[in-house]
Amino acid sequence: MPEPKKLSFACDYEEGAHPNILKRLVETNFEKQPGYGADEYSESARARIREACGAPEAEVYFLAGGTQTNANVIDAILRSYEGVVAATTGHVAVHEAGAIEYCGHKVLPVESELGKISAAALEQYLSDFASDGNRDHMVQPGMLYISQPTEYGTLYSLSELEEIKAVCERFSLPLYVDGARLAYALASPANDVTLKDLARLCDAFYIGGTKCGALIGEAVVFPRKGLVRKFFTSIKQHGALLAKGRLCGIQFDELFRDGLYFKVGGNAIRMAIKLQKALKEKGYELLFESPTNQILVVLENRKMAELEKKVVMSFWEKRDDTHTLVRFATSWATREEDVDRLISIL
Amino acid sequence: MPEPKKLSFACDYEEGAHPNILKRLVETNFEKQPGYGADEYSESARARIREACGAPEAEVYFLAGGTQTNANVIDAILRSYEGVVAATTGHVAVHEAGAIEYCGHKVLPVESELGKISAAALEQYLSDFASDGNRDHMVQPGMLYISQPTEYGTLYSLSELEEIKAVCERFSLPLYVDGARLAYALASPANDVTLKDLARLCDAFYIGGTKCGALIGEAVVFPRKGLVRKFFTSIKQHGALLAKGRLCGIQFDELFRDGLYFKVGGNAIRMAIKLQKALKEKGYELLFESPTNQILVVLENRKMAELEKKVVMSFWEKRDDTHTLVRFATSWATREEDVDRLISIL
Amino acid sequence: MPEPKKLSFACDYEEGAHPNILKRLVETNFEKQPGYGADEYSESARARIREACGAPEAEVYFLAGGTQTNANVIDAILRSYEGVVAATTGHVAVHEAGAIEYCGHKVLPVESELGKISAAALEQYLSDFASDGNRDHMVQPGMLYISQPTEYGTLYSLSELEEIKAVCERFSLPLYVDGARLAYALASPANDVTLKDLARLCDAFYIGGTKCGALIGEAVVFPRKGLVRKFFTSIKQHGALLAKGRLCGIQFDELFRDGLYFKVGGNAIRMAIKLQKALKEKGYELLFESPTNQILVVLENRKMAELEKKVVMSFWEKRDDTHTLVRFATSWATREEDVDRLISIL
Amino acid sequence: MPEPKKLSFACDYEEGAHPNILKRLVETNFEKQPGYGADEYSESARARIREACGAPEAEVYFLAGGTQTNANVIDAILRSYEGVVAATTGHVAVHEAGAIEYCGHKVLPVESELGKISAAALEQYLSDFASDGNRDHMVQPGMLYISQPTEYGTLYSLSELEEIKAVCERFSLPLYVDGARLAYALASPANDVTLKDLARLCDAFYIGGTKCGALIGEAVVFPRKGLVRKFFTSIKQHGALLAKGRLCGIQFDELFRDGLYFKVGGNAIRMAIKLQKALKEKGYELLFESPTNQILVVLENRKMAELEKKVVMSFWEKRDDTHTLVRFATSWATREEDVDRLISIL
Repeated sequence: MPEPKKLSFACDYEEGAHPNILKRLVETNFEKQPGYGADEYSESARARIREACGAPEAEVYFLAGGTQTNANVIDAILRSYEGVVAATTGHVAVHEAGAIEYCGHKVLPVESELGKISAAALEQYLSDFASDGNRDHMVQPGMLYISQPTEYGTLYSLSELEEIKAVCERFSLPLYVDGARLAYALASPANDVTLKDLARLCDAFYIGGTKCGALIGEAVVFPRKGLVRKFFTSIKQHGALLAKGRLCGIQFDELFRDGLYFKVGGNAIRMAIKLQKALKEKGYELLFESPTNQILVVLENRKMAELEKKVVMSFWEKRDDTHTLVRFATSWATREEDVDRLISIL
Repeated sequence: MPEPKKLSFACDYEEGAHPNILKRLVETNFEKQPGYGADEYSESARARIREACGAPEAEVYFLAGGTQTNANVIDAILRSYEGVVAATTGHVAVHEAGAIEYCGHKVLPVESELGKISAAALEQYLSDFASDGNRDHMVQPGMLYISQPTEYGTLYSLSELEEIKAVCERFSLPLYVDGARLAYALASPANDVTLKDLARLCDAFYIGGTKCGALIGEAVVFPRKGLVRKFFTSIKQHGALLAKGRLCGIQFDELFRDGLYFKVGGNAIRMAIKLQKALKEKGYELLFESPTNQILVVLENRKMAELEKKVVMSFWEKRDDTHTLVRFATSWATREEDVDRLISIL
Repeated sequence: MPEPKKLSFACDYEEGAHPNILKRLVETNFEKQPGYGADEYSESARARIREACGAPEAEVYFLAGGTQTNANVIDAILRSYEGVVAATTGHVAVHEAGAIEYCGHKVLPVESELGKISAAALEQYLSDFASDGNRDHMVQPGMLYISQPTEYGTLYSLSELEEIKAVCERFSLPLYVDGARLAYALASPANDVTLKDLARLCDAFYIGGTKCGALIGEAVVFPRKGLVRKFFTSIKQHGALLAKGRLCGIQFDELFRDGLYFKVGGNAIRMAIKLQKALKEKGYELLFESPTNQILVVLENRKMAELEKKVVMSFWEKRDDTHTLVRFATSWATREEDVDRLISIL
Repeated sequence: MPEPKKLSFACDYEEGAHPNILKRLVETNFEKQPGYGADEYSESARARIREACGAPEAEVYFLAGGTQTNANVIDAILRSYEGVVAATTGHVAVHEAGAIEYCGHKVLPVESELGKISAAALEQYLSDFASDGNRDHMVQPGMLYISQPTEYGTLYSLSELEEIKAVCERFSLPLYVDGARLAYALASPANDVTLKDLARLCDAFYIGGTKCGALIGEAVVFPRKGLVRKFFTSIKQHGALLAKGRLCGIQFDELFRDGLYFKVGGNAIRMAIKLQKALKEKGYELLFESPTNQILVVLENRKMAELEKKVVMSFWEKRDDTHTLVRFATSWATREEDVDRLISIL
């Protein structure tokens, strides 16, 4: 049960949608549009996304949520005997209730730090596999999954991404980037990876909507034609095809009209920087300096219990018997007055 | 590409949502609500649905679309060696791109007429199976799937449903009803099956939103506790869990506030009756007298080509070399002036 | 519980293995051989099969049984959104407990007669699919499965097979032939389809061992390289890789040494011809004149009950309230004295 | 290609079958027996196994190989949203090509040492899961998989097994033991876990045949009725049902007649002890003192290259740039003269 009086920094999907999106939904509501993504708004949104990605040939599809998108893309890219290489902390490896395994594919974990895989660790993993005498009895690495930003809110730099891509190419591994919170990466001053870079380096990626100001929706981008076949039917088969495709079409058309998607993350980043600064000044132990909208803080358990009376945060993991790692998340909708109230409480 | 000038009776999901729903989405947009269906609107919607179904113990879940809902419910009810019995023309049998098989389950087709299975045909099928010496080498019938209204727009009467239920009980088969267009059944003068009847007779059913005035969303109802376990996790595993559960919660809360769901089908039925009357008067061959919002008409191909210049209808199937079966669908949003224009064209 | 005194014509896998096979297993028993099909006998058997098929490039794999083989081959050929087209009476469609659906693939049934699909029916089915406006919402036909001999014991003639192949090519559909009882086809005087024909016309087929004189084992042949990738790993993933691959290797090496496989069916055919002649003379109603080792007879139920006291036969299906279709099967091991005893009982 | 002159200690499945088994296959070859495990030998073997396990109610099934058995049992026990907890080094976790994930289930790895999970580590894992706020978004632990002996050849003691069982019971987790090499555990002087103990403590386990003197075959034991339903159909669905069930039935009937299964491991253990003693005397570094038939030795790479000219051993893993861990395996068929030759080479 919600407690409206308590502050909440629990996650970045607590509100509805950016007001522009709702406005557009209302304006277009009574237009008759064909279903299943053949509507003019989906068409327009696809065109805008292709342009923003500098990928005029890109195939673009809209799905409802992140886990669904990962399952659809991964299952479409992999052959049945292949698995997806991912960070041990990757969303697909931990928090998707086995959605990937449900599609028959193993998640092959690679050591990671703060959510990031290094090109070196990846290369080591793939080399070891290639030289393992039992490899024919093992799940074949079939693609790489990484997240930008990662589940920890960290970022891959452009050079890191290029190094990873180089390893992927050496081992013929398609590269897929989960961009559930991509708007927050794009708005971060620490970020040097653009949409065009992603389109150039990835074989597939998705531009997150749900956590970045849409009601629902993720836009899958295959920058080059031909990687997957019959993706439409595959989406249907996964139960992921929306009859009213316009719902995603309109939202992404709006997000990519006048660059809204590039602005929507800005507020979250400003609020995160302010909050992070205050946390440090007050002597809190940050797990790391976060470049995006998720701030991970080590709290003494008694302190945590005290704070929880006034603010909702997100449990991350037990550190030891007396400390817990928690997350504060900001979003496109976070109000500065709430950040100020939080700071005054800390 | 849409042609705004052409009339369309192609399907019942060409518009957005009922205006009350959009209004409510706008009003609640900036409220912070927990994710994954724990929001207060989902809670309230579940309570209203339980009451409308006379099923105070019912477990209610919201999913995004029909194919997804069928796959989730069927996979949750069946053991892995079981299949779902369905009409040869059932949606799960034909038009879901193998979503059920994707979950590992065979669809076991039973002869049907205009979308309906008879209790007698079901009993015959199950008796034959039970007495087949090879049955242990065959997929075990694990549940029954029917649709109300059916894919043809026909209706099961209460007595037909009770007879089917009796057969199901005799063979220990859970009964599941796909109510993708349930609002149109409930609003039909020919209908005598209430939500309370469904709750009493079914082991699971879903109340369709997408085709009945919502943007997206279907409400799964398990009238009695305990049929499936961990359905929340199962939904997540299927990639079907919405982060912003409020999107469905708000819509169904509105649909079941002041009986909107029971009114929303009324317009469609009135428009369908008017159109059907005109078709008959003009000598068109109806496949049958439709009690709901889908009208199936046999058209001479030349006539069809002529009509298609002015109105979008839906191809159903080839009848012979010179005739085609087409569908006209009305909906909650169909305007009488469009029906009049269509009649004038016919 | 077996009743040794009763005659049995129940099926063609009631005995162990052809004596030559057992002899070879004993002779080679203490040789150390590498596992998983890398042994010299598997290598030799593969070479002999390639030669017998006139397919020097063929990839040959050994699996344990028919259902397993079908599931492995079909799953390896199909993409996840594809289904396998098969006769309504095809083994994969009915008697494999959903093994194909378990791999996520729908079996797409085509009308058949006495187990056979006609090229015309196949073409009709594929044309209808190609012109169906909803086809993107449906399982895509991805390959054709037929059996030689069929489940009824009937045979495709070479010209029928060539016509089917032509349709497959027109629709880019790989052709797969289930040869569970292939030895009985090859030994039939009515047969004009050779192993070389199969290798020329099929994209994959299997040469049945279990029902043709081996203890277990089926030999999958992909006549041309490259249709499937990583089949070894795929077999392992399906739990179908034998550690002691020699068990199949030795058996098929023996079956294809000195043409044993071509002789092994001869006894069955001779016995079937004799039995069939007697049945006709005694006025029994044969479902059709069988060219192979399965004879389907319509029995009056009282007659059946009487016969069942002295001979085990196989229930096929209920014909009406007073008649049943039953099967008598002969095999490589059927003794003429047993056929004579059966004839005297009839 | 095999090199008959080279010694081989590569694995424990390089020969055919124990001579008693072959003899019995030959003797029974022409008896007509019903298929699919309904033969009298399977019946007798099941009875003998029930008796050896002190489990008169046990359900016993025969399958062909270890990976297949694991996939069948695990899939039958788990609900679709559940995963199997296993050692990080468990066979199901690494070397089954994703057979478990293919069934839709995640393998949930728990830290292990030399193949063994401790009750404490298991309890920690399960407690952490139970208290994780995100657990409903994660694969639910649904059963425990351990191996006896483990993949390293180590053994669980009876008290260790009882402690593990106690944790399983506290968390309502069925316990399943993979006994691929169980004969070698039973014959080890270090072992104190009997078949009766396994039947008492496990919810399911299998008695390995393939690696313990049979041609193929594993005997699954469910000591108490009712854990899984329709396992026969499930086996068929997995493509794992042998038409000639007699092949396994005869082998296990022989293995459990006159206690052959308890003797068959003895030779392997004696040979392993002798070899291990020699290795130590010659200053080789053993990874640990092996109680069963697998000996893991750290070899300097140059030494390894030298040895490989004369003896086949099994690569285990790279230790560092100059050292490799290799395995020598003995079996029921290992000849003392070969051990002596190996020792003279070392």
